[in-house]
Amino acid sequence: MPKKHFNTPRPGTSNGILLYGRHPVTAAINNPKRQITKILCTPENEAEVRKLCQNAKRNESIISVTERKEIDKLLPSDSVHQGFASLVKALENYALEDIIRLADSLQDCHVLILDQVTDPQNIGAIIRSCVAFNTLALILQDKNSPTESGAMAKASAGMIEHLPICRVTNLSRAIEQLKSAGFWTIGMDGYATTTIDQIKKGGKSAIIMGSEGKGMRRLIEESCDITVRLPISEKVESLNVATAAAIALYEIHKR
Amino acid sequence: MPKKHFNTPRPGTSNGILLYGRHPVTAAINNPKRQITKILCTPENEAEVRKLCQNAKRNESIISVTERKEIDKLLPSDSVHQGFASLVKALENYALEDIIRLADSLQDCHVLILDQVTDPQNIGAIIRSCVAFNTLALILQDKNSPTESGAMAKASAGMIEHLPICRVTNLSRAIEQLKSAGFWTIGMDGYATTTIDQIKKGGKSAIIMGSEGKGMRRLIEESCDITVRLPISEKVESLNVATAAAIALYEIHKR
Repeated sequence: MPKKHFNTPRPGTSNGILLYGRHPVTAAINNPKRQITKILCTPENEAEVRKLCQNAKRNESIISVTERKEIDKLLPSDSVHQGFASLVKALENYALEDIIRLADSLQDCHVLILDQVTDPQNIGAIIRSCVAFNTLALILQDKNSPTESGAMAKASAGMIEHLPICRVTNLSRAIEQLKSAGFWTIGMDGYATTTIDQIKKGGKSAIIMGSEGKGMRRLIEESCDITVRLPISEKVESLNVATAAAIALYEIHKR
Repeated sequence: MPKKHFNTPRPGTSNGILLYGRHPVTAAINNPKRQITKILCTPENEAEVRKLCQNAKRNESIISVTERKEIDKLLPSDSVHQGFASLVKALENYALEDIIRLADSLQDCHVLILDQVTDPQNIGAIIRSCVAFNTLALILQDKNSPTESGAMAKASAGMIEHLPICRVTNLSRAIEQLKSAGFWTIGMDGYATTTIDQIKKGGKSAIIMGSEGKGMRRLIEESCDITVRLPISEKVESLNVATAAAIALYEIHKR
């Protein structure tokens, strides 16, 4: 009997993902690696979508001009779709070996590792910041991270099409592999004594962040070469995880 | 006849503001400047709320233990209230002269000015970053900015209680007044040639940011001493305004 469970699709992707919003749909059309099953657009957006498909050499037969109300019905009530939606296959997962190979030829680069960050909106916003600050890849623990979704793509403003994302089974082991490949591992921790602007410049680095409430798990934190904090006022318990990630990536990118 | 319109409360504040969520309600109780009419909490939160009121010397008669479903009914369906809500009066508006007076005795300080940022969630997130990075005050144009609300307080994680907010009628004039008071005015503009990390250190500064799509209005931009941009990849059109503000405040604060 074949090992059927290996071919079982991730939950939420078995029937594909429904992207929505102008930026996510446009970016998906322009991403040659993105498989698109169908594009829905309202009549006023038809010309724009046809043009996009022509430029990207996509078959226009996947376009379905649809009334706004019909698109509304497919999405949660508060989804701002702007008359654009698209049924797509999930992007392919990168293996950690792929990321390490990408880093091989680079002098300076950084990756971001998230431990236990579960909110798709936050992950989407973090993806947008990663692309803004030339992050090589985002590394997530497969088990505790949400799968790709329309809400995540929307929060990323379509930038999910531009970022290698790697889901690993064992985050501690992934950190060890990155260390062996020459990455300096920097954990973000509100109680650290060093602030992030003091870390050494250049080379390869991996930034590791935990969830807003709990931070990194102890084992993950212990595997970091150094822990650093953002220099924030005592009045504020913590920053939103997406805000903290943006600042950390900005600081690393600036070096 | 008395000039009645002078006494007309802001829209949304005539019946007070309904704060919700543990952080916003806790911070409101702890803020001596916040007038509280009523505190609603679920039975499991009663002891916590009574303790908070005792410590803050608030009259416990304003506490009303209420079933979760009843609190649900008072709020939009997606509001995460965690069993805490509170009916309060809007915080007092600071005059620009107050802010300038606060700055008088300080060698180094900064304020943030928002031009046409309209989303309460973004403004709330920006307030949280302002408090994190010791921003002296947030300055908004009265006409185009949302009034204080439960959603804004929630997005600020209660930090709205810690930040002087100043609403002005004429933003250009406010910028001129700040300049006369010795503030260096720094506009954020994606097309600027200078990046924000290159600006001179120390002294008094005012950062000015426009809305995500349109940026600052031309007149506002022209009144800035300098315009700077964040060093982001060309793949990304812009960052979310709250993310961009957080990075700018981090950079200014770090000096």
